[in-house]
Amino acid sequence: MITIDVKASRPYRVEIESGGLRKIGARISALHKLCRVLLVADDTVDGRYGDVVRQSLEEAGFDVVRFVFRHGEQSKTLDTYQQILGSAARNRLRRSDLMVALGGGVTGDLTGFAAATYLRGVDYVQIPTTLLAAIDSSVGGKTGVDLPEGKNLVGAFHQPIGVFCDPDVFRTLPTEVLRDGIGESLKYAVLDGGVLLETLEQGDVCSERFVALCVDSKRRIVERDEREGGLRRLLNLGHTYAHAIERCSGYRLTHGLCVARGLHEMIAWSERNGLISAPSAERIRAIYRRYDMPTDPVYDKKELIAAMATDKKTEGDEITLILPYEIGDCRPVRVPLGELEKFLQ
Amino acid sequence: MITIDVKASRPYRVEIESGGLRKIGARISALHKLCRVLLVADDTVDGRYGDVVRQSLEEAGFDVVRFVFRHGEQSKTLDTYQQILGSAARNRLRRSDLMVALGGGVTGDLTGFAAATYLRGVDYVQIPTTLLAAIDSSVGGKTGVDLPEGKNLVGAFHQPIGVFCDPDVFRTLPTEVLRDGIGESLKYAVLDGGVLLETLEQGDVCSERFVALCVDSKRRIVERDEREGGLRRLLNLGHTYAHAIERCSGYRLTHGLCVARGLHEMIAWSERNGLISAPSAERIRAIYRRYDMPTDPVYDKKELIAAMATDKKTEGDEITLILPYEIGDCRPVRVPLGELEKFLQ
Repeated sequence: MITIDVKASRPYRVEIESGGLRKIGARISALHKLCRVLLVADDTVDGRYGDVVRQSLEEAGFDVVRFVFRHGEQSKTLDTYQQILGSAARNRLRRSDLMVALGGGVTGDLTGFAAATYLRGVDYVQIPTTLLAAIDSSVGGKTGVDLPEGKNLVGAFHQPIGVFCDPDVFRTLPTEVLRDGIGESLKYAVLDGGVLLETLEQGDVCSERFVALCVDSKRRIVERDEREGGLRRLLNLGHTYAHAIERCSGYRLTHGLCVARGLHEMIAWSERNGLISAPSAERIRAIYRRYDMPTDPVYDKKELIAAMATDKKTEGDEITLILPYEIGDCRPVRVPLGELEKFLQ
Repeated sequence: MITIDVKASRPYRVEIESGGLRKIGARISALHKLCRVLLVADDTVDGRYGDVVRQSLEEAGFDVVRFVFRHGEQSKTLDTYQQILGSAARNRLRRSDLMVALGGGVTGDLTGFAAATYLRGVDYVQIPTTLLAAIDSSVGGKTGVDLPEGKNLVGAFHQPIGVFCDPDVFRTLPTEVLRDGIGESLKYAVLDGGVLLETLEQGDVCSERFVALCVDSKRRIVERDEREGGLRRLLNLGHTYAHAIERCSGYRLTHGLCVARGLHEMIAWSERNGLISAPSAERIRAIYRRYDMPTDPVYDKKELIAAMATDKKTEGDEITLILPYEIGDCRPVRVPLGELEKFLQ
């Protein structure tokens, strides 16, 4: 087991342990007194792991009630959120009780937002079941749902009391879902370089070590900037582009694979403009080939730029892009919206 | 003008000024840079004050968009909340923009919760248009809505950047609505005694001075306990009983008048049990007569006790009641649910 302590406004620990899922009840009872637990999962994850987790929680002495919703991004709505809250209320969850999110990013974001706001805040635990959720949404305290008007437009910052990752679970993921996590991990590899990059080049992405390196990369950034003042922006490497592609696809293309595409564009731009060196750019591209990651931007530049202009992170008439000056040295650059097309040529 | 500085996790000022409503634009521009403002009001308040406030904001240079909803407690739902968020999104409000709540407690709670969660938090300003909202919900940072399963079950702590009270507005309130505020102010009079009590005995409840004394009373308590650890519980004086009455009435009886009823019961109990002195109890009852405040508990004790047992503040098998040992000396007492009936005899 590898543990990582996150010093957020409310500190918590990420525990990464292969085969840890069956011991989850004991692990959580070390963090929180015995109480009623609302266990939230989508129907796919519930079918696969719901009983294991419930049983482990009950053996540890928790009183478990379950809420299951239909899998998929289209469930990340205020409607599902209200259903979780209704379930909590009907099961008489109190302020001293606990919510547990068992699943990917959608489940974590939904449950976290419900926990942030039910009775104005109850504790929650994250059990990410995808590589992407483990290395991305389970650190940082961002929770929320989509509105019909746009993605992630409503939410809260709410830190979990603990995060439990079982990399063995990631081994059972369909290839496309695993590659979604690899797409996000490429970002950390370019931000950090070093051992994280080497592990991605040689290693096993479903190892405790690799997951821990990615989580630790995000932790270092988030700890220094919990509320997204400046440094946390680095985590947007490849993301402005990725969000534009996702949006153009009506969110049929998944996040991590779009991050891979966006990152690929940023590296190409940096190389063309004499920032990142050719060997470094090539080193990253070799990883793309190794894991068969997509590189095409899919949509026309004009279409993507129009999507970027309406990004919620656009400030006034400028957009901030993160550019790799080198592996391990990425920096924010403000680009006027009017010059974006020229910039991305 | 009287100003009160509230030292919350994010400090802010309450400005109390008779006739201040028409200067609201200039006042807000002293707190926040010019931006787009989402002005939220119910149809009644909008009809009365919406144009004055919009005009003042526009004269100060703000770009105003409006959201109007149907008045009444039945609008304090996730559905109205979602409509406010949708309006914010369609009007492209950004993180640097502002929401303004113009109205009573429902408007403040709804708008505050929308502001707490839209883009994970934008600034908001409270302009309470009822005495009750001015002295109760506009200080303390509690925001939220009701669920079908119960009142105020979802929400967030989110401090406004400023609160603006115009007591002249309270003078135009229907008598029943004004008395609702007086009911809540009776609580502060018993908690504090002194000049607040004297002002209530002799004075004008729509004066800057009286509003300021009540706001300051709540401020002193909330500042020392923003998250409801212990001291803030004192604010529940009369409230456990009041909530039970409200609930039994299906929320047709209003909050402040139920607080008056609950407080009257607590004082009667204290007097019977030799805590508060007879002259002090009589002094409070004289105020009830002066303002024609209700004193009857309306419902049968058994019915009220059953309602108290399901109160969200019930902890395990105990309930905490606040008892006046004397005017200016109220203390929490834990009562086992099983002994509540005997206790309240």
